[in-house]
Amino acid sequence: MITLASDFGTPYPAAMKGVLLSRTDTQLVDVAHDFPRQDVRTAAFWLREVLPYFPPAVHLVVVDPGVGTDRDALVIRAGDHALVGPDNGVLYPAATRLSEGNEIDVYTVDIEDPESVTFHGRDVFAPAAARIDEVGIGRIGTVEEFRPTHEYVDLRFPDPDVGEDAARGEILVIDGFGNAITNIPGSVLENRFGCEVEVSGTRAPAARTYAAVDIGEALVTVGSHDNVELAANQERGDEAFDVEVGDAVELRW
Amino acid sequence: MITLASDFGTPYPAAMKGVLLSRTDTQLVDVAHDFPRQDVRTAAFWLREVLPYFPPAVHLVVVDPGVGTDRDALVIRAGDHALVGPDNGVLYPAATRLSEGNEIDVYTVDIEDPESVTFHGRDVFAPAAARIDEVGIGRIGTVEEFRPTHEYVDLRFPDPDVGEDAARGEILVIDGFGNAITNIPGSVLENRFGCEVEVSGTRAPAARTYAAVDIGEALVTVGSHDNVELAANQERGDEAFDVEVGDAVELRW
Amino acid sequence: MITLASDFGTPYPAAMKGVLLSRTDTQLVDVAHDFPRQDVRTAAFWLREVLPYFPPAVHLVVVDPGVGTDRDALVIRAGDHALVGPDNGVLYPAATRLSEGNEIDVYTVDIEDPESVTFHGRDVFAPAAARIDEVGIGRIGTVEEFRPTHEYVDLRFPDPDVGEDAARGEILVIDGFGNAITNIPGSVLENRFGCEVEVSGTRAPAARTYAAVDIGEALVTVGSHDNVELAANQERGDEAFDVEVGDAVELRW
Repeated sequence: MITLASDFGTPYPAAMKGVLLSRTDTQLVDVAHDFPRQDVRTAAFWLREVLPYFPPAVHLVVVDPGVGTDRDALVIRAGDHALVGPDNGVLYPAATRLSEGNEIDVYTVDIEDPESVTFHGRDVFAPAAARIDEVGIGRIGTVEEFRPTHEYVDLRFPDPDVGEDAARGEILVIDGFGNAITNIPGSVLENRFGCEVEVSGTRAPAARTYAAVDIGEALVTVGSHDNVELAANQERGDEAFDVEVGDAVELRW
Repeated sequence: MITLASDFGTPYPAAMKGVLLSRTDTQLVDVAHDFPRQDVRTAAFWLREVLPYFPPAVHLVVVDPGVGTDRDALVIRAGDHALVGPDNGVLYPAATRLSEGNEIDVYTVDIEDPESVTFHGRDVFAPAAARIDEVGIGRIGTVEEFRPTHEYVDLRFPDPDVGEDAARGEILVIDGFGNAITNIPGSVLENRFGCEVEVSGTRAPAARTYAAVDIGEALVTVGSHDNVELAANQERGDEAFDVEVGDAVELRW
Repeated sequence: MITLASDFGTPYPAAMKGVLLSRTDTQLVDVAHDFPRQDVRTAAFWLREVLPYFPPAVHLVVVDPGVGTDRDALVIRAGDHALVGPDNGVLYPAATRLSEGNEIDVYTVDIEDPESVTFHGRDVFAPAAARIDEVGIGRIGTVEEFRPTHEYVDLRFPDPDVGEDAARGEILVIDGFGNAITNIPGSVLENRFGCEVEVSGTRAPAARTYAAVDIGEALVTVGSHDNVELAANQERGDEAFDVEVGDAVELRW
């Protein structure tokens, strides 16, 4: 199985699928092709959250503002999974999550003279993913074009600062519903559902479900990623709390 | 075969696919993941129109404004098909269409302590769909976690009022092209193509095809759902007729 | 394998998939369903660029402003591939590219009384595509409903005018990143990377990669289609150069 994720919209992913299907008849599964353009950080977050739900697979990821520069193409073996994409950190958070604390093996892809310098998704990453599918994830180390490396971009999300009566963190991403997802662990709300908390100075109810508050009302909840989310019932949490990605958040109870 | 439909956008559907593919290697087919957010009625309409074209399949549907409340999770057997989703009416019109007048069997899904309270698509509905795929649609009744029920939301679209020289109905949905789809049966236009009809006081030609009128001109036609549609050649019918979903429509000839 | 491309958005493509999967269990691959509405030319361009990356397949294409008129439904055999869609030119550039200079065989599809006159994608083209999948691309000529023809719309993109110190062409399409793709061959920039060129009177650097210029800066590059593209590093080239589809472009060096 090969999953595909990119910021390409359409129809560029179809060219990658054509390349893959010319070399393998494995199942292809789209993760997303509408990641915010060239936003490595947001893509890295979503891949970390979504890929662990898949069975062992090769994950082809192309969010690549540096395409055509001398940034490396990477292959990472993480547990039973493999990831392929540019060396800009986009693979790293998912790889560490998929490896479940074990070491990851990282390789640079040595493909000379790709057909284009602006579409490595089609000309470098897709062929590399098909190659892994061919040899098997457990035998990545045997592929001659993959060279072991210890130098790569290890994008990390900031750790929250959780205290006794407050937690400080930041907005990592905002999803399509407008939920503002923080890096603060949901566990801080345990035993506080039904109470009000203070979010950067404003009071809002902590609730397990959106529907626990009136339509349009703001709430603080625990999202499906186990992180604290700023939300609003059937409306946008980012607007209700007036926050953007990267904003600092202080939760006080 | 399992089809997927939701209002999730991306990348949440990918987490559902990961869960499904961890449990079954059946074919997955996307119906749509851009249904208007939390608009149960519009999703219900489209599913009723689209799902009958599929061969027997399990249809996983998540448009779920009440996620995490005590609304039930439903499994419905309708003819050779099965539907899985929240008990808010979204499955009902498709189920009655798929059962072709036969009874439907409805079950509540008894899954205790799902991983999250905000993402039942991943944690409740996808596992239930995989379970049906495993046992077979004909043997839904044997699954212990599915409890037969006769209480569920039976969302129904309003019936039109068709008379001798007029029909009254409403706009059910507006599609991406701007065609305003009514609940008035297309048969009322039979023998009237080429003539003008009156739509809530405005006159417009009745035509079999968009191209029968000049580009930009309004027309009344019969859509692919056999309903009367308010359209405009290569432009938006909803704008040409100034209508919105839920508006009353009177057709007079 | 059957690929699908349209300007339908969702959920109409799902009805086509249902029809296909009711008749064949071959693999379905989406190329794009968000081609600009009823823009035959743009769809024709993308199909020409993307479909050649696929292994032999049936390509179902529906961008069809003339649906329901007497425009023909076409089947084209081009090399090892087959294309199905309306006779408005949308298939032609891809067919000539896929046939690699060999002749193409063109047929009209003779399907009487389709279920609808407004959704031939579902009622005419999908059944025709499934029929080809059933008999095999090499045996298209044996299908009774397919009638050989030599009359069809042969949409052609304009040829550029390449001289010794200048090239004149036009903007063919603008992609989702804002890259303005011309019909001028990338070879004119050979040996000029690192230099400035003049684009319709404005000077801009010719560069192999977006990242060769500062973020936001305009550049002239060679895209993944081997055509000259007007781009901007991490921003939109169409805005940087103030161009639209169809605009004339003069490149001078």
